[in-house]
Amino acid sequence: GQVVEALRGLLGSTEGAVLATRCNADQVSAVALALPEARIEPDCGVVVARDAGRSPPLGVVAIVTAGTSDLPVGREATVVAAALGAKVDLLADRGVAGLHRTLAAADAITDADVVIAVAGMEGALPSVIGGLTAAPVIAVPTSTGYGSSFEGITAMLAMMSSCTPGIGVVGIDNGFGAAALAIRILKGQTR
Amino acid sequence: GQVVEALRGLLGSTEGAVLATRCNADQVSAVALALPEARIEPDCGVVVARDAGRSPPLGVVAIVTAGTSDLPVGREATVVAAALGAKVDLLADRGVAGLHRTLAAADAITDADVVIAVAGMEGALPSVIGGLTAAPVIAVPTSTGYGSSFEGITAMLAMMSSCTPGIGVVGIDNGFGAAALAIRILKGQTR
Amino acid sequence: GQVVEALRGLLGSTEGAVLATRCNADQVSAVALALPEARIEPDCGVVVARDAGRSPPLGVVAIVTAGTSDLPVGREATVVAAALGAKVDLLADRGVAGLHRTLAAADAITDADVVIAVAGMEGALPSVIGGLTAAPVIAVPTSTGYGSSFEGITAMLAMMSSCTPGIGVVGIDNGFGAAALAIRILKGQTR
Amino acid sequence: GQVVEALRGLLGSTEGAVLATRCNADQVSAVALALPEARIEPDCGVVVARDAGRSPPLGVVAIVTAGTSDLPVGREATVVAAALGAKVDLLADRGVAGLHRTLAAADAITDADVVIAVAGMEGALPSVIGGLTAAPVIAVPTSTGYGSSFEGITAMLAMMSSCTPGIGVVGIDNGFGAAALAIRILKGQTR
Amino acid sequence: GQVVEALRGLLGSTEGAVLATRCNADQVSAVALALPEARIEPDCGVVVARDAGRSPPLGVVAIVTAGTSDLPVGREATVVAAALGAKVDLLADRGVAGLHRTLAAADAITDADVVIAVAGMEGALPSVIGGLTAAPVIAVPTSTGYGSSFEGITAMLAMMSSCTPGIGVVGIDNGFGAAALAIRILKGQTR
Amino acid sequence: GQVVEALRGLLGSTEGAVLATRCNADQVSAVALALPEARIEPDCGVVVARDAGRSPPLGVVAIVTAGTSDLPVGREATVVAAALGAKVDLLADRGVAGLHRTLAAADAITDADVVIAVAGMEGALPSVIGGLTAAPVIAVPTSTGYGSSFEGITAMLAMMSSCTPGIGVVGIDNGFGAAALAIRILKGQTR
Amino acid sequence: GQVVEALRGLLGSTEGAVLATRCNADQVSAVALALPEARIEPDCGVVVARDAGRSPPLGVVAIVTAGTSDLPVGREATVVAAALGAKVDLLADRGVAGLHRTLAAADAITDADVVIAVAGMEGALPSVIGGLTAAPVIAVPTSTGYGSSFEGITAMLAMMSSCTPGIGVVGIDNGFGAAALAIRILKGQTR
Amino acid sequence: GQVVEALRGLLGSTEGAVLATRCNADQVSAVALALPEARIEPDCGVVVARDAGRSPPLGVVAIVTAGTSDLPVGREATVVAAALGAKVDLLADRGVAGLHRTLAAADAITDADVVIAVAGMEGALPSVIGGLTAAPVIAVPTSTGYGSSFEGITAMLAMMSSCTPGIGVVGIDNGFGAAALAIRILKGQTR
Repeated sequence: GQVVEALRGLLGSTEGAVLATRCNADQVSAVALALPEARIEPDCGVVVARDAGRSPPLGVVAIVTAGTSDLPVGREATVVAAALGAKVDLLADRGVAGLHRTLAAADAITDADVVIAVAGMEGALPSVIGGLTAAPVIAVPTSTGYGSSFEGITAMLAMMSSCTPGIGVVGIDNGFGAAALAIRILKGQTR
Repeated sequence: GQVVEALRGLLGSTEGAVLATRCNADQVSAVALALPEARIEPDCGVVVARDAGRSPPLGVVAIVTAGTSDLPVGREATVVAAALGAKVDLLADRGVAGLHRTLAAADAITDADVVIAVAGMEGALPSVIGGLTAAPVIAVPTSTGYGSSFEGITAMLAMMSSCTPGIGVVGIDNGFGAAALAIRILKGQTR
Repeated sequence: GQVVEALRGLLGSTEGAVLATRCNADQVSAVALALPEARIEPDCGVVVARDAGRSPPLGVVAIVTAGTSDLPVGREATVVAAALGAKVDLLADRGVAGLHRTLAAADAITDADVVIAVAGMEGALPSVIGGLTAAPVIAVPTSTGYGSSFEGITAMLAMMSSCTPGIGVVGIDNGFGAAALAIRILKGQTR
Repeated sequence: GQVVEALRGLLGSTEGAVLATRCNADQVSAVALALPEARIEPDCGVVVARDAGRSPPLGVVAIVTAGTSDLPVGREATVVAAALGAKVDLLADRGVAGLHRTLAAADAITDADVVIAVAGMEGALPSVIGGLTAAPVIAVPTSTGYGSSFEGITAMLAMMSSCTPGIGVVGIDNGFGAAALAIRILKGQTR
Repeated sequence: GQVVEALRGLLGSTEGAVLATRCNADQVSAVALALPEARIEPDCGVVVARDAGRSPPLGVVAIVTAGTSDLPVGREATVVAAALGAKVDLLADRGVAGLHRTLAAADAITDADVVIAVAGMEGALPSVIGGLTAAPVIAVPTSTGYGSSFEGITAMLAMMSSCTPGIGVVGIDNGFGAAALAIRILKGQTR
Repeated sequence: GQVVEALRGLLGSTEGAVLATRCNADQVSAVALALPEARIEPDCGVVVARDAGRSPPLGVVAIVTAGTSDLPVGREATVVAAALGAKVDLLADRGVAGLHRTLAAADAITDADVVIAVAGMEGALPSVIGGLTAAPVIAVPTSTGYGSSFEGITAMLAMMSSCTPGIGVVGIDNGFGAAALAIRILKGQTR
Repeated sequence: GQVVEALRGLLGSTEGAVLATRCNADQVSAVALALPEARIEPDCGVVVARDAGRSPPLGVVAIVTAGTSDLPVGREATVVAAALGAKVDLLADRGVAGLHRTLAAADAITDADVVIAVAGMEGALPSVIGGLTAAPVIAVPTSTGYGSSFEGITAMLAMMSSCTPGIGVVGIDNGFGAAALAIRILKGQTR
Repeated sequence: GQVVEALRGLLGSTEGAVLATRCNADQVSAVALALPEARIEPDCGVVVARDAGRSPPLGVVAIVTAGTSDLPVGREATVVAAALGAKVDLLADRGVAGLHRTLAAADAITDADVVIAVAGMEGALPSVIGGLTAAPVIAVPTSTGYGSSFEGITAMLAMMSSCTPGIGVVGIDNGFGAAALAIRILKGQTR
């Protein structure tokens, strides 16, 4: 209910994209009922009430995820970045344990204007990606994994300590924040 | 000695900027003796053996520091970003405890293509700056302060948890990394 | 049941305000049934069995909250401080990411005898408020936020490390403790 | 040198008290030479270039320290609070391991308008003092002790978790911050 | 089921006390059905299948708890110590925030051969008790409290850092371990 | 100087043992000069100005150390316990990595009235010793080791989590505290 | 459903063992229905869709568990190592608190080519086992225990700090990883 | 002196390799004087008083280091493993930030019987190496780096959380332990 009201308020008072993240199943249902025109992405809890509708897009964001369980965070970043006007290339399951899969994405990575690397566990992906591209790299630690992953702390610290220079880290599971930073970067590039 | 050799090697084998960070007093002296043409910045331990010599510059980076003791890290970012081709606007002593001083820098902040916010202690500066500008914000936690600052951990966690979306955090005291990310962003903008 | 008994005991044996905090839904229902005269605030789990009934009030407490999810803790502080005899001015949604909203509360903040600043995530609000007023500032970290907020630890450390002098921090989510400290201060002021 | 200049600047541009804390031996010597009229307290590293000169004082601050090694922090709070206009009653060596010594200070504690409790190790002192007085209690954790004291973290956490309501905690070893909060409280009381 | 079998096995193969701790409701019911002669203490999850039946008792253990929520752990220690042959004097609700209540137990504390102090939050109780008696003091941190108590870590660290010498700490919520240590001590005393 | 004075004061005002721990080389020299009758143990920094002179001793304390670098802490406990009236049996280098050496001390361990187990690194020694004896076991974590030992935290946590019931832990490197607890236990046994 | 599909895919595309770990009850049921030939081990959540079917086995892995609650992790390691071609000797309930039970397994331990030691709480078992055998020792910390075990962190740190050289640690509760490392070792031995 | 004596004792009483690690400059000088036949490796503080003299070697250990500052730990592992009878292939400066340098070592890595991966900062190297080889991988976190590396904790946690199965982690900077585990593995392989 509150989410619906907030979205309606924003639709009325602003002009750009209007969206909500981290919606649970109840909130998604409420929005689906009340705002039939909204685009709903239940796998990552994002609701897009109005797209930014950029044409041409602001630029290309490659979003690379390490493991299966990092996908929802990668999808949150994807939906948000797209709604805010970017062209998004989502490259899933590219963790460094299977380096050939990481390297198979190398071309797509170097073609992008900004790269978002999403990884839990040991968080090694951004270090490798930062060595493959000269574009800005945004790292998102995820709370994926169990035991020694400590709900994303391990990945967060690893990303902050990366030996590859030029990586900016956002909060744990914060796909939205990564997309927001990517859009800030792209907007400067198209100024 | 090792630093001198490494710099000489890079001067011979590459074309762009050549620099070394975190040089101690002995290393600085050795470089001054062996490479008289090198620019030396003893206050932040950076040695610039060759400048990138960009004209016009890649863009403008505003580097905002919170307190006096954050200045060396801000200076490291300044020297590196300038050597790599950016125009840098260093705005010192703008911590949020004296909000009028932060706000007095608002115009310079909004004029920049990228903003680097350097702060220790509670690390609040990037949150405020992120609300003032639409440009990308890079946050650098510093090991400034004593007691409850825990050598930068407090600032690092605060910056990672910022309520302002679109902030990328680099490692503690990592002015070099912040400059490197700023240059990655600017290079995309001038492509 | 136990809560009801405890409240009855206190009503019989003391003269001042009688209240219970952190009541869950069951306890609230039990009190509503057994003590119909009690004032119940279900949004923050506080039950006021008897008000201190101060006239004039001890003084003015401004309670400033950063984000929506900090509101229940702010409300706990509000209800408790009011029941113990203060006039309370609750200023919600004043986080520093939207600095204009913080600054719009500046007059109310400077008019207060004591200010309670309630914030989770990066906990920057008290640092800014401490720069706006000469009155004592009490900071309450909240367990708001996810990921890198670490259930209030980040905000707690940030508040303890504030670069603004003259801020006293209470425990995570401890709106009751903040109100108690505010009342101790006001009572001294009206002695 | 820098400290001397900063003090001179403040003496010229402001009217109230002017002081510097955490001065090391070199800074103390430089000040002694350059500003002969300054009062120097080498045991706690505070230099008072100009006293606030309040008459009558703003009120009484009782400063209670637990062990011998907490004394320098207690002294820092004492000198700062006195320079800022308070009457200070310093009660040293009152740790709860020797409860009779704590209790022997009970009258002095209840006579004060504000109490500052300084303790390292297990940080139990503020909890006991908070039960003895109705005045506001400011707790200062110190980095006293070795081993399991973890340079003040243990005391800091203990004070934040105190079962006594109405205690505000400042940063580790932050005697200056405690004095600043005490003065904010006293100024309100004498308005 | 498993618990019942384990208890039956021990009843058949040993001669001393036989008991199980940390039984949940289901396990308690199963035992009640299968071993009707067992004494069941549902408030602390202890089942005593056979008492040590010491006469006279091994000695007196005073078990002092700080707050209401420390009582289950104190009760676990009480039931176990009694089953293993001690006379137990349980003194509840003696936290140092209400020092008069702690001191009212001073005689009972000094009369005991061993004292177990059970406290969560800031864990100050053992430090005070250790100053009141010359007998060995066993400290049990509890996971009582919320926020800055960190599920007993704060109390554990505080107890390990106690300024009172001669206190042995057991694990968080480990009433059983405290009772076991008390019995080890008493058995030596009656040798 | 201060140490000498404090010792003289205690020699004049009390009757029992008088000692100082954690004396550095300067303090040791000052005491040697001023109090020639004092017994000085430079390897562990303890000065015994007056022995308790118990005859017969209060009982037997076995002090078992794991590795070479745990010895100074074990020696501190030895000197203090002996000065306070115990007979001490120091069993060095009995870490569980060489289990035969631990087991070779089994008889001496079972003969003691109290056992103090001193270990750094993984802190496994008290768990094994607790299984060998029915007497009370006091565990002292030491800051021995490097890397993952985290200056005693690992050993401290391991000892607090021991699967052997009846172990009381004192602070990191706190040989004095362990001896004090041993004496409290022995005094009860000889009452 | 997803698990079934993934297993079917692997059965079709690979030749070696095919298995899934950490399956919950629903996933186990789905597999039982869809792949009737799969071997299911519900006590440790492992499903073996196809065995490696090594004859003779690669070698002998002794898997030693400390307490009852470490058994599921030990069982996960057992099922995985067996499915991948090892002969496994599972030795349960061998914690060092009952050292005779550890020592009773000494022959089986020294007969093995690789030893996996599984322990929670204080994690002392691998240190003792490493002293008994010259074979490689793999340590698995488990999240067994409560209070001061901190969900396996204590055991993990203890194992990393072991005074016994030649122990490799895997992640908390990671029986699968331990088995995988054991197989890597055995495969080298049979090359 | 002590080191010399210990080495002499071992030379007299044992037959295999005799060595000492973590020797400082003084100890190295003392050994050089007293045991002229000893091989001294001052860059990593290892002294080899007697080599195991295996011919042929036990097998091949590839030791891969990430950055320049990881080299001393890699050298410690190299010298120890060689002295204990392995053939060692040291591959320096192979961090994943320059992935081509890591991949250039792929053949040497796959040729080895055991691989030791040494890395500080984000500790990503073992994850990548584990994907390149089927041999056992031993990971050594180093205290390399500053700021967010936290003296090796970040690398240690990352390695424990590796998404590549079959990696065993040893303590921070523990090159000796890694070599010892490698030798345990090789000895089994040559049995």
